Amino acid sequence: MNTWGNIFRLTSFGESHGTAVGGIIDGCPANMVVDFDFIQSELDRRKPGQSGLTTSRKESDRVEFLSGIYEGKTTGTPIAFIVRNNDHQSSDYNQLKNVFRPSHADYTYSIKYGHRDHRGGGRSSARETIARVVAGAIAKIILHQQEISITAYTSQVGSIRLDKPYTELNFSNIEKNLVRCPDWETAHRMAELIREVQSAGDTIGGVITCVCRGVPAGLGNPVFGKLSAALANAMMSINAAKGFDYGMGFEGVHQRGSEVNDLFYCMESGSIGLRSNYSGGIQGGISNGEDIYFRVAFKPVATLLQAQPAVDKDGNEIVMQASGRHHPCVLPRAVPVVEAMAAITILDELLNHHPTQLPLPPC
Amino acid sequence: MNTWGNIFRLTSFGESHGTAVGGIIDGCPANMVVDFDFIQSELDRRKPGQSGLTTSRKESDRVEFLSGIYEGKTTGTPIAFIVRNNDHQSSDYNQLKNVFRPSHADYTYSIKYGHRDHRGGGRSSARETIARVVAGAIAKIILHQQEISITAYTSQVGSIRLDKPYTELNFSNIEKNLVRCPDWETAHRMAELIREVQSAGDTIGGVITCVCRGVPAGLGNPVFGKLSAALANAMMSINAAKGFDYGMGFEGVHQRGSEVNDLFYCMESGSIGLRSNYSGGIQGGISNGEDIYFRVAFKPVATLLQAQPAVDKDGNEIVMQASGRHHPCVLPRAVPVVEAMAAITILDELLNHHPTQLPLPPC
Amino acid sequence: MNTWGNIFRLTSFGESHGTAVGGIIDGCPANMVVDFDFIQSELDRRKPGQSGLTTSRKESDRVEFLSGIYEGKTTGTPIAFIVRNNDHQSSDYNQLKNVFRPSHADYTYSIKYGHRDHRGGGRSSARETIARVVAGAIAKIILHQQEISITAYTSQVGSIRLDKPYTELNFSNIEKNLVRCPDWETAHRMAELIREVQSAGDTIGGVITCVCRGVPAGLGNPVFGKLSAALANAMMSINAAKGFDYGMGFEGVHQRGSEVNDLFYCMESGSIGLRSNYSGGIQGGISNGEDIYFRVAFKPVATLLQAQPAVDKDGNEIVMQASGRHHPCVLPRAVPVVEAMAAITILDELLNHHPTQLPLPPC
Amino acid sequence: MNTWGNIFRLTSFGESHGTAVGGIIDGCPANMVVDFDFIQSELDRRKPGQSGLTTSRKESDRVEFLSGIYEGKTTGTPIAFIVRNNDHQSSDYNQLKNVFRPSHADYTYSIKYGHRDHRGGGRSSARETIARVVAGAIAKIILHQQEISITAYTSQVGSIRLDKPYTELNFSNIEKNLVRCPDWETAHRMAELIREVQSAGDTIGGVITCVCRGVPAGLGNPVFGKLSAALANAMMSINAAKGFDYGMGFEGVHQRGSEVNDLFYCMESGSIGLRSNYSGGIQGGISNGEDIYFRVAFKPVATLLQAQPAVDKDGNEIVMQASGRHHPCVLPRAVPVVEAMAAITILDELLNHHPTQLPLPPC
Repeated sequence: MNTWGNIFRLTSFGESHGTAVGGIIDGCPANMVVDFDFIQSELDRRKPGQSGLTTSRKESDRVEFLSGIYEGKTTGTPIAFIVRNNDHQSSDYNQLKNVFRPSHADYTYSIKYGHRDHRGGGRSSARETIARVVAGAIAKIILHQQEISITAYTSQVGSIRLDKPYTELNFSNIEKNLVRCPDWETAHRMAELIREVQSAGDTIGGVITCVCRGVPAGLGNPVFGKLSAALANAMMSINAAKGFDYGMGFEGVHQRGSEVNDLFYCMESGSIGLRSNYSGGIQGGISNGEDIYFRVAFKPVATLLQAQPAVDKDGNEIVMQASGRHHPCVLPRAVPVVEAMAAITILDELLNHHPTQLPLPPC
Repeated sequence: MNTWGNIFRLTSFGESHGTAVGGIIDGCPANMVVDFDFIQSELDRRKPGQSGLTTSRKESDRVEFLSGIYEGKTTGTPIAFIVRNNDHQSSDYNQLKNVFRPSHADYTYSIKYGHRDHRGGGRSSARETIARVVAGAIAKIILHQQEISITAYTSQVGSIRLDKPYTELNFSNIEKNLVRCPDWETAHRMAELIREVQSAGDTIGGVITCVCRGVPAGLGNPVFGKLSAALANAMMSINAAKGFDYGMGFEGVHQRGSEVNDLFYCMESGSIGLRSNYSGGIQGGISNGEDIYFRVAFKPVATLLQAQPAVDKDGNEIVMQASGRHHPCVLPRAVPVVEAMAAITILDELLNHHPTQLPLPPC
Repeated sequence: MNTWGNIFRLTSFGESHGTAVGGIIDGCPANMVVDFDFIQSELDRRKPGQSGLTTSRKESDRVEFLSGIYEGKTTGTPIAFIVRNNDHQSSDYNQLKNVFRPSHADYTYSIKYGHRDHRGGGRSSARETIARVVAGAIAKIILHQQEISITAYTSQVGSIRLDKPYTELNFSNIEKNLVRCPDWETAHRMAELIREVQSAGDTIGGVITCVCRGVPAGLGNPVFGKLSAALANAMMSINAAKGFDYGMGFEGVHQRGSEVNDLFYCMESGSIGLRSNYSGGIQGGISNGEDIYFRVAFKPVATLLQAQPAVDKDGNEIVMQASGRHHPCVLPRAVPVVEAMAAITILDELLNHHPTQLPLPPC
Repeated sequence: MNTWGNIFRLTSFGESHGTAVGGIIDGCPANMVVDFDFIQSELDRRKPGQSGLTTSRKESDRVEFLSGIYEGKTTGTPIAFIVRNNDHQSSDYNQLKNVFRPSHADYTYSIKYGHRDHRGGGRSSARETIARVVAGAIAKIILHQQEISITAYTSQVGSIRLDKPYTELNFSNIEKNLVRCPDWETAHRMAELIREVQSAGDTIGGVITCVCRGVPAGLGNPVFGKLSAALANAMMSINAAKGFDYGMGFEGVHQRGSEVNDLFYCMESGSIGLRSNYSGGIQGGISNGEDIYFRVAFKPVATLLQAQPAVDKDGNEIVMQASGRHHPCVLPRAVPVVEAMAAITILDELLNHHPTQLPLPPC
């Protein structure tokens, strides 16, 4: 299953050291002006080699569109795109051809498929997320027209946690530091921790928080296909993701109903408002018009720059020593991927929202 | 979207105070002997009125099968089933017809559909989970033949948390206490907290942990449709669920890669083993043959037995006082629902696993 | 696969002699007034025992709705419905339990499932089409509001063929004769042929023509999911259907492009019109606003009232003699089923048509 | 909807005069040796410029694979492939930019999408079928290992019809003549007719027959998703297809049940055999192990080499004169496309056939 979505659908392809990675976006509305610079800028946000905090692989990651766009506008037909792989030093991986690296997908791919492209992790490489970022950029362009914004940031690295609620943060700071945390002081401490971990040849995980503003009420579904479940599905499809919660999430279990119920009131405008947003913008699986916010937990990167015991496919125990290019921490580069998957998911729900499901008149 | 699954597919229907709830299971393998007593016993586990800790609604919840079973065995054709609603005191809800109760789905359903069956929460009632438990029971019967077991338990209520790892617990205790926690002392404290919260007219949330044993390696998918993402999707589709994590989950972000990498070794049997299971039985989205374990966070029940401000559909602010039958805590009855969704999801993946995807010879 | 549709989705269940047949309609727009009398009248059109030309099985076929409708209007949640089986004389079929009847589904079901409910054909019985007629009736109610009409009629029985184009027929005659052919003289000859075939203990096939009026331009898809392909898929899912064509169809291969090209012109109203409709209302897989018309070929009923050689599941050759109730000709009762499948399919495409796919301004 | 299939899934992209056409094949079994020469030879069969009977567009149509294949074998991950467009003389089409050509998809695309790539028909061009032929070739490789063969041929052009049953034909003749008809004399007459039509600046349609041998019993589904319906859906998705029938098809309506029932008998081998195959290898929607054969009707090509009235998007009536490269008859080049869609569909059903659906022991 390499397809995501119901109406706006991304099918992704490509291995880390294959010819190219890319995808096909099917179901994109026609007549949308495509901002190629914006799409490239989103790709640049996830590109390797941005800083010492992430991998040093050098890729220009230029996207080429093959179809579905004519005279700068979408035609409603499938949009195919590719990004060629250039800087793949596959020889780095020759020694790993038959090795099952710990906490990687080598073993499970071998069990499932029998035959795999081991080079750079093959299909299990995070390089696959290029396709998501391109599709997410196109989704963002359309969402932007609907005044919907999607913003993610690093909210925790190891035990360093940004405890301020997102409403008190200045999102314009996010892209101004290497860890993509909107709070300067916390960002600084996170960067320090990552460097420390890196110098020990080790890795560290963390949490990304994402906020979706302007999502209209009524998106999602009551039973299966809840908007919350769709977002969970989307986020858990990202490499290294280990957990998802939204609204009060795991923290909310400590509180009582009387503390976390979101009370309605009638605003001066005559519309119905909410005095709090513990629900996280989704009630009964359907958006209520408030901000949607959620968290995604990422594990530490499995590849360490230190010796580790491993097993090869013939059952021999060996000691492996990674020599490729690796991240001490996946969080900074995962921020645009979280945004992309959120954008794709919200847009798909928006396109799934049918006019026959009539809106309620304002109070 | 009221359908779950790809091969083994449940379509559920029904409102809390309508004529009946039920569903259709499509894609169930033929020739399976149906253990009707087991199915009813699973329904009894989620039935209301089991104890003072949950709702006092009285329902016999007898399931009637309408098709797909002949001479006690499945025929491969759709299995339809219904459970009639008997004890629906809809008049309890007349006063709520036009009210948007806080942190319920009243408002979002109204926005989405314009017209709703408000009685007992209508479609948003947890009574819908009857369909899941019936389908889950059938899935469990099939999984049992494959020596796969699914066990869930209450691991946290409010701040009372069962800190022992699941491997140290005696699962046979789960059904022996009202909160469905396998540790007696913790179960006792949880029950006390629920009673205390109940006497205050308040509610409390918690966490359910679920363990899937015997799942073969190779289930799931690399990119979209990861087994972890499918489980997250399944769990987040349960009423009141606010979070999901698996393996090391949210806790793992505090640790370094060197601490949580699962090291392979060659067992005496010649098979490849793992020295730890921080991965939670899933690597790169595909099961690795180890235990799969995950957690689901549930918020406190939104209906309180105390006065709360609310708004009606015309925007009038009112004070509502619930007079129906309510749970102080959803956790005990959610345990069989978590198991059911896990069973349905694992079985669907098992049926999705194609023989052309050849297994790896043992090392 | 017992589910049809993408947005408006019918899942059907039930065996001929099981407890009940029925289905769940998911994705029906909310706020639609349900005309129960109309739905029952559609069911009555396909009911057995309407005349000597079809089967003599007596069924009242009263539909009971279990969910999804409140205060006479749809709520947007799943609409479940059942029709109990009453007059199932299963003992008629005891002798057939292990027999593979010629040109029935007995053999293929046994191969596929190993275990089957043989009584009255079980799941392969045309009794399953009850679910389609109920869903089709609801679809028709919604289409009617959009001024879309669906009309089918018997256009051929054996070699007796109604050669007039549909535009010259009076559709109000269709329900006034037993074969559902709008031309009195042809209808009379068809009825005579059916009676002659029946008295010989034999059966006969034919063709149903269906006309969809008022379908707006723009429905369907360019490549896969063409509107023509969706209709073909729908029609070929009906029991005994052997062929489908639309517009000029199989007849058109005799003609040259210059004879059958549909020429555009600008009508006095300023809209673009077509001088002919050989295309059958669909061009490049997408409706063009003209009438959609198509034909469905049905084979002769397989069950004969004469002795036939057969084989039982142990490979013994036997002579079977049907003693149940049978049709000499399926056509008259298939007319409402063809309409139902057309209505479901057109409605589903209508709901799939997104507002972001902007309409063309009139010329 | 540019995706076909459930397990083996093709997503196609590309416009006639865009950068490239191609697709992604998802769900291809792993470990299959890819015969690149065979794939190219299949592409060469549909390539333009093979003879004066079809279009004179010159394209080398070399396919480049981008992913999913490693060391010559499939890996189970998505197989992406592209064919660059070279000989697109887009300027030929400038005059057609705003014209709605008769019986083409220009008008319906404009209605649906508002904005379209008109060059060479854009997405509605049969050039899209390149993706199908590549995927079909890969499907054929896998089917070949299962001893399943798919063979199509031109059985009718205009009124010239090959009346012999397929069992009396020598399929090895098909590729030896330009019209792909296995009967020399008929092939010759067909070729003459096509040349005659061509010299008149006109076009002609016809019928392709396809035979699938070796398909095991048990493929397909009883209600929706019948194997016959899946094939109809597949064939009606091909450009210019106007009709589909299988087995006795439209011809069978002239006959009586007693003439066309397929009688079972017990073969000397002990297996159950059939004395005839009017059913066309599918009974009750499920394959019975006999040959599957079906017919597809194609309309005459819409583009004529003679003046035709047309309308532009502003409603002006004009006279258009095609000057591009065109086919007088689509049939010869459609033969490999019919085979490709049949192969993809049969393989998908084969992969959908689950081991839990147990086979019947031989009689």
